[in-house]
Amino acid sequence: MRSELLSRVLSLLPDPQEGRSELRQYAGMLRDYPRRGGKGIRSELLLASARVHGVQQDTPGWDAALWLAAALELFQNWVLIHDDIEDDSEERRGQPALHRLHGVPLAINAGDALHAYMWAAVHRAGVPGAMDEFLNMIHHTARGQHLDLCWVEDRRWDLAEADYLEMVEQKTAYYTVVIPLRLGALAAGARPSEQFTPAGLALGAAFQIRDDVLNLAGDAVKYGKEIGGDLLEGKRTLIVLHWLNTAPPEQRQVFLQQMGLNRPDKDPHTIAKIHRWLLDSGSVAHAQAYAHAQAQEGLALLAGAFQDAPDVQAAGELMAAMRKLATREA
Amino acid sequence: MRSELLSRVLSLLPDPQEGRSELRQYAGMLRDYPRRGGKGIRSELLLASARVHGVQQDTPGWDAALWLAAALELFQNWVLIHDDIEDDSEERRGQPALHRLHGVPLAINAGDALHAYMWAAVHRAGVPGAMDEFLNMIHHTARGQHLDLCWVEDRRWDLAEADYLEMVEQKTAYYTVVIPLRLGALAAGARPSEQFTPAGLALGAAFQIRDDVLNLAGDAVKYGKEIGGDLLEGKRTLIVLHWLNTAPPEQRQVFLQQMGLNRPDKDPHTIAKIHRWLLDSGSVAHAQAYAHAQAQEGLALLAGAFQDAPDVQAAGELMAAMRKLATREA
Repeated sequence: MRSELLSRVLSLLPDPQEGRSELRQYAGMLRDYPRRGGKGIRSELLLASARVHGVQQDTPGWDAALWLAAALELFQNWVLIHDDIEDDSEERRGQPALHRLHGVPLAINAGDALHAYMWAAVHRAGVPGAMDEFLNMIHHTARGQHLDLCWVEDRRWDLAEADYLEMVEQKTAYYTVVIPLRLGALAAGARPSEQFTPAGLALGAAFQIRDDVLNLAGDAVKYGKEIGGDLLEGKRTLIVLHWLNTAPPEQRQVFLQQMGLNRPDKDPHTIAKIHRWLLDSGSVAHAQAYAHAQAQEGLALLAGAFQDAPDVQAAGELMAAMRKLATREA
Repeated sequence: MRSELLSRVLSLLPDPQEGRSELRQYAGMLRDYPRRGGKGIRSELLLASARVHGVQQDTPGWDAALWLAAALELFQNWVLIHDDIEDDSEERRGQPALHRLHGVPLAINAGDALHAYMWAAVHRAGVPGAMDEFLNMIHHTARGQHLDLCWVEDRRWDLAEADYLEMVEQKTAYYTVVIPLRLGALAAGARPSEQFTPAGLALGAAFQIRDDVLNLAGDAVKYGKEIGGDLLEGKRTLIVLHWLNTAPPEQRQVFLQQMGLNRPDKDPHTIAKIHRWLLDSGSVAHAQAYAHAQAQEGLALLAGAFQDAPDVQAAGELMAAMRKLATREA
């Protein structure tokens, strides 16, 4: 995230120099993830939406938008702390996950505290309606996360593509696109367009599917995560669900057998073989095409919503940025 | 909690009849702990404080106080879900802990969602200043929880009584007494007395120490929890810390050896022996006396704060209830 957002985030958090050593550790844990430097995709989208709606830099509206953007970054960070526990991830942004550094109990507690500081940032923004947006955002995200976790726990692979899309809309699209677009409008004192929801759901799905494709077929250096990591983690993706419906029965069986194992018990050689099958199937191209169509649909809806935008140039920039995100290489 | 609070809490939560089976499970998980029927100690204190400050039933002020009380119950419940994971507790209110029923990942997520619904209740109350109280409450509680968890993780027993009291003030006293007293005043549109903080810290400490005593020396039927459970869980209490400073070295050594083991590895026979040593020592009486003095101090401060209260009778009732809590048998 941009440095002026990071300083706002850190300004809300407890002082890491204060109190007994345990409390200095606590304060350090709250600052850890925000300082690891995420891309700030959601906060930038929120700020871009505020500009489209006529908010100009160095005005009170811009200050409010920055607080909302800081709140969105705090959201992202507390959710990541808890997600990393829920998925038992090893790494986050190139360093060990917080619970791998401090244990699960302290990391749950740090995520809870960061969650509360998110509300402090929302409160600080003083934007009418913003609190309802954050409530709605968490409502959707928690539902999507529940679906995803249920399927992992029950080792369910008998899912339709529509199931995956429902999960991604709830878990990713609202907090990545729909709500940032809406918050930008609210920061400007404007009423969010009703088109933001269908546009954001389509663009959010495109964004997530693109991420799934990159995880399987991307350039490891540009992408910055382990290629094929989703396979090892047993993540449901559009690619895998499409492939399962078309793959030869013996490949399917090998796949389901591996997915029935815990991550450390999976056989790297067999996983590499499955990885190759997936790449050689038409399923990556299918997912790409689906993501492309969703991106086009989302951008068209957005263009309609921005037709009478106060700042037409900013609207063009926002849409170019969204297009880039949905077709990105990393 | 009283039934009108429970219905307010449930009215905010997602419908358990709606959507696919996974989402019905999700909605059911959010409702589970609130429906298990806690005592509602904090919400009753908040409502009592509102009455002391002149709020009368069936007025808008009373409605606001009820929403704040519902928020306090939601706080208690999401914190318990996460605490039970952090302590790996087996039971909560006579039934298996939520993560024992559904696994850790889903339970973390359900706690997070319930946390957000707490803010929805705060928002609904529409009481100026209430949001800051909740932020402050979580700030203290998370710090106290961090201290407690650190000591467990590092198997630290070289703690002074002052360390324990600092932890209990942060972890328990703010959310149990200080903040409910303050929220009651705010619901009445009054400025909370500055005496509420020292009074609440003293009474909160008395309340927790009383709980520690009951856990060790209470009547199992009345108390409703396993007597000696704190010992098996390795909880730091004023009793144990006092005893460690006075016990014969060989008893100390047996104790520390057992506390170095995980719960399932502890020897029930040895734990029973330690339990007896603790009961036979002067440490229970020491803790009782300390709690009694704290309760007296807290009540005296409260009497001062309520001197010019709009409702003197309600003030008397609140203080009688506080006295009862600090000397309760269960």
